[in-house]
Amino acid sequence: VKAEIIAIGSELLTPFRQDTNSLYLTEKLNQFGVEVAFKTVVGDSREDLTAVARIALGRAEILIFMGGLGPTEDDLTREAVAAALELPLQRDESILNVLQQRFAKHKMKMAENNAKQADVIAGATVLPNRNGTAPGQWLSGTYDGTEKIIILLPGPPHELKPLFEEQCLERLRTKLPPAFIATRLLKVAMLPESQCDARIAPIYSKYVHVQTTILAHAGEIEVHLRARADSLEVAQERVDELAEKLEDELDDFVFSTKGESLEQIVGYYLQMRGATLAVAESCTGGLIGERITSVSGSSRYFPGGAMVYSNDLKSTLADVPKSLIKEHGAVSNEVAGAMAEGIRQRCKATWGLAVTGIAGPTGGTPEKPVGLVFHALSNGQSTEVVERKFPGDRERVRWWASQQALDMVRRKLM
Amino acid sequence: VKAEIIAIGSELLTPFRQDTNSLYLTEKLNQFGVEVAFKTVVGDSREDLTAVARIALGRAEILIFMGGLGPTEDDLTREAVAAALELPLQRDESILNVLQQRFAKHKMKMAENNAKQADVIAGATVLPNRNGTAPGQWLSGTYDGTEKIIILLPGPPHELKPLFEEQCLERLRTKLPPAFIATRLLKVAMLPESQCDARIAPIYSKYVHVQTTILAHAGEIEVHLRARADSLEVAQERVDELAEKLEDELDDFVFSTKGESLEQIVGYYLQMRGATLAVAESCTGGLIGERITSVSGSSRYFPGGAMVYSNDLKSTLADVPKSLIKEHGAVSNEVAGAMAEGIRQRCKATWGLAVTGIAGPTGGTPEKPVGLVFHALSNGQSTEVVERKFPGDRERVRWWASQQALDMVRRKLM
Repeated sequence: VKAEIIAIGSELLTPFRQDTNSLYLTEKLNQFGVEVAFKTVVGDSREDLTAVARIALGRAEILIFMGGLGPTEDDLTREAVAAALELPLQRDESILNVLQQRFAKHKMKMAENNAKQADVIAGATVLPNRNGTAPGQWLSGTYDGTEKIIILLPGPPHELKPLFEEQCLERLRTKLPPAFIATRLLKVAMLPESQCDARIAPIYSKYVHVQTTILAHAGEIEVHLRARADSLEVAQERVDELAEKLEDELDDFVFSTKGESLEQIVGYYLQMRGATLAVAESCTGGLIGERITSVSGSSRYFPGGAMVYSNDLKSTLADVPKSLIKEHGAVSNEVAGAMAEGIRQRCKATWGLAVTGIAGPTGGTPEKPVGLVFHALSNGQSTEVVERKFPGDRERVRWWASQQALDMVRRKLM
Repeated sequence: VKAEIIAIGSELLTPFRQDTNSLYLTEKLNQFGVEVAFKTVVGDSREDLTAVARIALGRAEILIFMGGLGPTEDDLTREAVAAALELPLQRDESILNVLQQRFAKHKMKMAENNAKQADVIAGATVLPNRNGTAPGQWLSGTYDGTEKIIILLPGPPHELKPLFEEQCLERLRTKLPPAFIATRLLKVAMLPESQCDARIAPIYSKYVHVQTTILAHAGEIEVHLRARADSLEVAQERVDELAEKLEDELDDFVFSTKGESLEQIVGYYLQMRGATLAVAESCTGGLIGERITSVSGSSRYFPGGAMVYSNDLKSTLADVPKSLIKEHGAVSNEVAGAMAEGIRQRCKATWGLAVTGIAGPTGGTPEKPVGLVFHALSNGQSTEVVERKFPGDRERVRWWASQQALDMVRRKLM
């Protein structure tokens, strides 16, 4: 079964805004074994939109229209889809009542044009929208000689998602043949994409029944596995078998098999061991702390730390001897180690983590180029330091550095 | 002139990946007065892609195809566009030579299928690609009875952008009627979107020749202005006149008129006054430091600060009296003020900035609910504290808090 997702709105044709709902809808449709074959974005033009609807009717069995259901003159989805289907619009009195009550509750008089939100394509089921005024619509039946499902959804994500979840999933389930699909996600830290692929391609390419998608970010790779079979058990077996082989191959580069983020995994390990972590950040300037505290409950293992951007603060807040900085420079193996142990003691933490480097674009020298970062982890007995030279711009270097630092903690506690 | 942008690749129809090139291309096309009327995403299917190309030929004058120019069986853009135009493909010997040389340089033998990258649609100009193997193609002339411009571009952004910049901009300029377009961007801090729009809608709605686009993020609103006229002077006058009126109305809520970020503006003001800023972050956990240091050169005004997530560290690193925390709680006006002044002194900075609050989702009480945040700014003589209750989830509350804190610094130094 082929689907087409159509996003409506002239703002989606500017350089500023992009449809993101379609990613969510694609995930949901894929779970029913439905592939999205086309995505279209069209502006608030009745003629263009009607033409787009006609084209979609000719090439897809499931059509999802998003947006253009509001009360303004620019909201033309109802009219255009009705025109493409050659069906009339009928004003629904019960929707009209709900709209009028909603306005009355806010002590406002409903403007005339709001009534068009009560227009329903003949034969459509109304999908009430509890987060906005525009209801959705559902049509299923024979159109243009084939079975089609046509869904009209409001554009704002906080309206679209609950509406789809509550009122479309079950309807799709009853209309579509049962699909047995299993998925797995492996997350991999600090392995270059080319190396990762070179290691796993010989394995996954043999599994023709599992669809493998590899997404690479700075310092992190996601390996998505997806299989379809005649039963859920078989589909699950297929992805599990491949996932296991990939895990064996990638070994401890795999940090997550259930979708958790690296900062969540670091938090799990720290809690499991009853340990705490303090950080001293120079070139990352707070990024590592920000990532750790993005996890709710992180106060159980993260007391805090220091942003020691200046050399003075490296001494004042993390007790790095001034002589050490003078001798080796602030970006050095020695200073990184002293920062980690200094902040550990200062914060009375089990572990101290530190980063110092040159994020760029300026400040690099032939000996210490942009991208050079030292990462240190100390527990009082021993201090491990990792030196890396990261590629990319300031933002990327800082992200890589935070990723490397968090990964050191993971590997140590694993 | 209407354009259609067509992104090709089955990976763009998964839940994981999205076309982003079209935002860049839209910005460039808009500068020529060309509006994007349709965007289409289609997979690596010859039949689907040929049909999509035929539809685009029927509804747009400028067609830009992105992706599907590589050497694999799935790369079908050349074949499909040629089929839609009913033109033959011709193998270009000079491209073939370049490809062979490239492989020879890496001491590799070129695989047979790479040769298809040398296939050129009859009449097309080859657009060399200095960042990849697949060259682009440019066609302009009469197709289907109307003047068209048809461009084939490689999909990877780091190939597409330089290629478009270097080889398409000038060609478009000579083909299109001159367009005189001026733009302006105002950025507004800490004003709710509804209030902002209520204040400026009566003004901008009178300027029918200026297109106004409002984008709202947490704590920040962008007002994009765009005008087209018969000369650049007139277009510029139009946006400038409206921009001035909007600035007058929004007054000191406007923090940027040239596209700068809030952290850049804070940096300008600090440098201008020869001042420095230290931060003590509780619920934001490093986010403010991370934002400040995302600006290259921030070491000139940012020595650093502390992430004082635990109550102990509020005392150890920011010298907040333990009795104050006991009496008022860590999330309080008093503790915020003490954190700001404590970190200022500890870091020997001109200004001390502090944030303490409840980011959620847990930890809220009836008296101190999730979203409650205290922000403090101190210079040793006086301390200002702002209490806010922010909406949204953990990530949004933290972002709002960082935005409010940076905006306090901006307003104080303005």
